[in-house]
Amino acid sequence: MAGRSAARGSLSPGKLRPSGFLLVVSGPSGVGKGTLVRGLLKARPGCRFSVSATTRPPRPGERNGREYWFQSREEFVANRRRGWFLEWARVHDHLYGTPIREVEKQTDAGRVIVLDVDVQGGASVRRRRPDAVSVFVAPPSLAELKRRLVGRRTESTDVIRTRLRNARREIPQYVHYDYLVVNDRLPEAIRQLVEIHDVERRRVQRLSR
Amino acid sequence: MAGRSAARGSLSPGKLRPSGFLLVVSGPSGVGKGTLVRGLLKARPGCRFSVSATTRPPRPGERNGREYWFQSREEFVANRRRGWFLEWARVHDHLYGTPIREVEKQTDAGRVIVLDVDVQGGASVRRRRPDAVSVFVAPPSLAELKRRLVGRRTESTDVIRTRLRNARREIPQYVHYDYLVVNDRLPEAIRQLVEIHDVERRRVQRLSR
Repeated sequence: MAGRSAARGSLSPGKLRPSGFLLVVSGPSGVGKGTLVRGLLKARPGCRFSVSATTRPPRPGERNGREYWFQSREEFVANRRRGWFLEWARVHDHLYGTPIREVEKQTDAGRVIVLDVDVQGGASVRRRRPDAVSVFVAPPSLAELKRRLVGRRTESTDVIRTRLRNARREIPQYVHYDYLVVNDRLPEAIRQLVEIHDVERRRVQRLSR
Repeated sequence: MAGRSAARGSLSPGKLRPSGFLLVVSGPSGVGKGTLVRGLLKARPGCRFSVSATTRPPRPGERNGREYWFQSREEFVANRRRGWFLEWARVHDHLYGTPIREVEKQTDAGRVIVLDVDVQGGASVRRRRPDAVSVFVAPPSLAELKRRLVGRRTESTDVIRTRLRNARREIPQYVHYDYLVVNDRLPEAIRQLVEIHDVERRRVQRLSR
């Protein structure tokens, strides 16, 4: 077993297979978490994106277990009660959750699984999985975040105002995370996230567990 | 104060100046620690190499405080007794030590200070400075380490035999370090060391202290 020989200290440590881990990426709405995570998955195809459960009905072309695990509201609520979600959230009228089993299956197989969650979800994941590597994505400034939210032209002024108010409350939460990535220029921010992934992969604790 | 506002959680975390830290690079003799560290210092000129104290007399062109702090044996032993060395070692007939003050001066100024020490020195540094970031440099295999030591053509067969025996005992010590870098291809190993430096610079704990 790779894990056991590492614990004793292998004479050929380079040949050990590192164990998987959970990489949680969080930050305020509009900061570009989704784009960053897609950039990481493209650069490191060995990473897996966690497939969430949702009560929202499937759209044409979506397949159960690929885009989402589609569940009825009753199923979702029952699963939530069983503690099967690492974190969950209500978005508009639907429920979304991260099945713990999804995460465990991938990390047990030695893979890095990436979660893209809001700040409340990030707090929940860090509480339940203190071994997770956590990255907070912050905007260069609140003014810049506002420019980005307005630039999207998809949200009303009211929604934008709410998101900025939330961001002001959420940004100081970065102190509870392992890493801070300021998303100023996107390619540089992706590079930083990829580096965090690579370096965390190289941590001895992941060889000796 | 950057540290205090970070502890509360700044709204512009990108503007905070990270604090310095001690980066200790260790591994068996002949593994290429020195070359790796020079590669890091070249790539990241903000890093500082720790100037050691030694009882060896200065060579022509060497300046006190630049290559080494030159000390008489009496001075060195007295300083050692005062606990002024983070680690020390006897190499051939001379004593070498890392003055704690050197390290503190640089890290207090927000710089990364790099130490290149043997495995015994590495253990001593990790014990006295548990906040240090520690990197163990391992050879791809003992056979390859032997090839490198023989290839140098600077040591006798006896010395090489001793070093290999030591390496066999030292390599399993990597489990006590934060990171493992296998020095197979040098440019790749330098790249990994530079990445570790960069990512550790980005740790939130260095912003919020």
